[in-house]
Amino acid sequence: MAEIKYDIIEKIGILSESNKGWFKELNLISWNNREAKYDLRDWAPENEKMGKGITLTKDELRQLRDLLNNMDL
Amino acid sequence: MAEIKYDIIEKIGILSESNKGWFKELNLISWNNREAKYDLRDWAPENEKMGKGITLTKDELRQLRDLLNNMDL
Repeated sequence: MAEIKYDIIEKIGILSESNKGWFKELNLISWNNREAKYDLRDWAPENEKMGKGITLTKDELRQLRDLLNNMDL
Repeated sequence: MAEIKYDIIEKIGILSESNKGWFKELNLISWNNREAKYDLRDWAPENEKMGKGITLTKDELRQLRDLLNNMDL
C-alpha cells in the first residue's frame, strides 16, 4: 500500500465540529515534501485520521474570499 | 453501480481553471433530492464530469469567510 507523507505547516482554523468529533479545518500542508498548499479537509481529533478534502492555491483562496464576501451569509 | 443524482441549484462562482480545462467551482447543489448544500469541487467543462470536492454548510462558509478575511492573501 502506498504511503502519503504530509506535514501540517500551519493550522489556520476550524470551520466546524461534527457530532462524531471530526473537525473541518483549513490548514497549510506539505504533501510528500512538496511545496505547501492550502487544504480544506475533515480530520479526526488530533489530526489522527484524515477524511476527504481539497487543496487550494493562494490564488484560489483569494477568489473564494471574494466570492464569500459577495454572498449574503 | 450506484447512481448519484444531483441538481446544481446555483452556480456561485469559479475559483480557477486548470490547464486541462477543469474548473474549481463553488455551487449550491442538491444531492439525491435532499436539501441543497454548498459545494467546492472540480468540474469538467459544462459540469459534464465531477472531480473530488467537499460540501459545506452556510455556517461553515461563514467561518471560512472570516478565516480568509483574517489572512494575508
